Amino acid sequence: MSHLTLRSDHNYMARALRLAEKGLWSTDPNPRVGCVIVRDGEIVGEGWHQVAGEPHAEIYALRMAKEKSAGATCYVTLEPCCHHGRTPPCTDALIKAGITRVVVAMTDPNPLVSSKGIEQLLKAGIIVDTGVLSHEAEQLNPGFFKRMRYNRPYIRCKLAMSLDGRTAMASGESQWITSQDARRDVQCLRARSSAIMTGAGTVLADDPLLTVREAELPCHLYLKLTPIKQPLRVIIDTHLSMPINARMLSLPGKTLIFTASPNETLKVILEKAGAQVIPLPGREREVDLKAMCRVLAEKYEVNELLMETGATLGGSMLRAGLIDELVIYMAPMLLGNKARGLFNLPEIEQLDQNISLDIKDIRAVGCDWRIVAHPIYSR
Amino acid sequence: MSHLTLRSDHNYMARALRLAEKGLWSTDPNPRVGCVIVRDGEIVGEGWHQVAGEPHAEIYALRMAKEKSAGATCYVTLEPCCHHGRTPPCTDALIKAGITRVVVAMTDPNPLVSSKGIEQLLKAGIIVDTGVLSHEAEQLNPGFFKRMRYNRPYIRCKLAMSLDGRTAMASGESQWITSQDARRDVQCLRARSSAIMTGAGTVLADDPLLTVREAELPCHLYLKLTPIKQPLRVIIDTHLSMPINARMLSLPGKTLIFTASPNETLKVILEKAGAQVIPLPGREREVDLKAMCRVLAEKYEVNELLMETGATLGGSMLRAGLIDELVIYMAPMLLGNKARGLFNLPEIEQLDQNISLDIKDIRAVGCDWRIVAHPIYSR
Repeated sequence: MSHLTLRSDHNYMARALRLAEKGLWSTDPNPRVGCVIVRDGEIVGEGWHQVAGEPHAEIYALRMAKEKSAGATCYVTLEPCCHHGRTPPCTDALIKAGITRVVVAMTDPNPLVSSKGIEQLLKAGIIVDTGVLSHEAEQLNPGFFKRMRYNRPYIRCKLAMSLDGRTAMASGESQWITSQDARRDVQCLRARSSAIMTGAGTVLADDPLLTVREAELPCHLYLKLTPIKQPLRVIIDTHLSMPINARMLSLPGKTLIFTASPNETLKVILEKAGAQVIPLPGREREVDLKAMCRVLAEKYEVNELLMETGATLGGSMLRAGLIDELVIYMAPMLLGNKARGLFNLPEIEQLDQNISLDIKDIRAVGCDWRIVAHPIYSR
Repeated sequence: MSHLTLRSDHNYMARALRLAEKGLWSTDPNPRVGCVIVRDGEIVGEGWHQVAGEPHAEIYALRMAKEKSAGATCYVTLEPCCHHGRTPPCTDALIKAGITRVVVAMTDPNPLVSSKGIEQLLKAGIIVDTGVLSHEAEQLNPGFFKRMRYNRPYIRCKLAMSLDGRTAMASGESQWITSQDARRDVQCLRARSSAIMTGAGTVLADDPLLTVREAELPCHLYLKLTPIKQPLRVIIDTHLSMPINARMLSLPGKTLIFTASPNETLKVILEKAGAQVIPLPGREREVDLKAMCRVLAEKYEVNELLMETGATLGGSMLRAGLIDELVIYMAPMLLGNKARGLFNLPEIEQLDQNISLDIKDIRAVGCDWRIVAHPIYSR
């Protein structure tokens, strides 16, 4: 491959990635995928996957390119599918349209596809190149890939803290540590998530809705996009202490309650109030958090899960090695040592037992600072 | 003044500021000052103040320029002195050398000089322009200016913390949260300080030397500079519990102990061990921290004071509105809520009682992050 081709491949794939991003808030549980069709150095077709059940990115691009697909190169951010799912296989469509070369950012970790799509294209005599901007393509769908590979969601933990690491006053008062800009940014995190998780304690204290408030999303993003799907609500409620008049229970959409309690009466009452209760007892009368992740991935197709929890549940998830990403909004203020901290980690007695972090990004969001970090689990 | 002159003025003053910086670690208790002499668009003389008692920046520049000073412009980062201090007045030397224009970054807040230097130059028929890069010149000597204007030092509080705001384990273990790069950076903070302050508790726990370790300073800076002056050691010791075998007491240089204790016996013992004890009782049997700052400025000519203290003394200094700058090294790790926090601020009960910060800088230092912030005191 000449240098010129390589550079062009990267350019067209970058465009396909930007297209894929348009599905950030709507493709769930499918991955975000973008596609560009190029003939004689001209983009003749573009598309992105918008909503599950509707056509894949390749189909939109082929529709736009029409007869110009013949002899063209197709850039797609994920290996084309080759199976009949909600829609017919894209490989068939690409072959039928006369595409002669397909450039793929990465192979699909979905066991139903994984390399089989590429094999079908090769069998049809199509040239296939893979690995162009694969790292960027990987980052577009952390949840989908985690679910396909490890049978669990990609879990993001959102926290708002003062510079001295305090999330709330001793009294529990925590509204608002961060500015409106940071809270708008959180709406973007919610919008891209399949599910939002919190603890029953937070429900009792704050009675949150856990919804995406569309009006608070940045307009320039929102206006381009298809309607928001409200995330699944996930409550960890060890003893089934969730109040039946919690506001979220009367909202459209689903509220899942994971519990360690065997109490059938409380279960029935909460289910009548609109929740779905899943008993999942683990060790020490706690909810089995690992099993919960498996259930969320397998049964509810949760790709990205957003945690908005307190220090106890946050600490338990961290200890279980289940948090993939911390998103911390740091407000320019001090609250002092009496105020509440980020994570209860009672087993850390010595400095060398710390949980190391890989800091990915630190940037200003309004007058606050957003820190993105990945825990490095030694196991 | 034409635009061309203005741009040149800024260029030459910027050069003078860079020269002044060479005295960052050595001019104490004098300010850092740089000087550039320019004739016909050519730099004919340069100098910076190196050590108190030795010539001022202007004198070095005039010596280099020799007869080329006649008709030249002199750029100096601080108003030239007009009084006989440790050295003769610079205004006389500038007039005598035939300088025809003086550009000054800022007037000297030292009451012995303040605008009198400029008046003398004007009286001698010299053109004087002021205010070129004054903000930058101000930042070069925060301590000297604070002392001249408010009769107290500029106080910097250095802290090392985990991302969740923890400075040490519950046991007190804290070596080392941050990396070697951050610790080297701290050596630079120590080197620019007139004094380093800590509490007796820290002395009992860690027996620190509080010295500048020259070998740990960045070589590219160190090699350019005159020998390091070890900072004054300042210990806050409410009850005179400082051990007489503390390592710092056998070091060259001075250790000051401020105490609220009237115990004469302990005072004599500690003074025999090499310390100087200053009883300064305030309210609630604590050391009067404001009075201490006054003493340090007035009697010991402390420009910049570096605090390396625990959460209690840190909290008291913050509450008293005495900390001008926080320098926080944030390590990429979590330590959990059992570990120790930054500041004890027991009076903060509600969120709106927080201490606001103006974040000046966040940047990577090795694998850690350094946050520089200024507390905004509402009083």
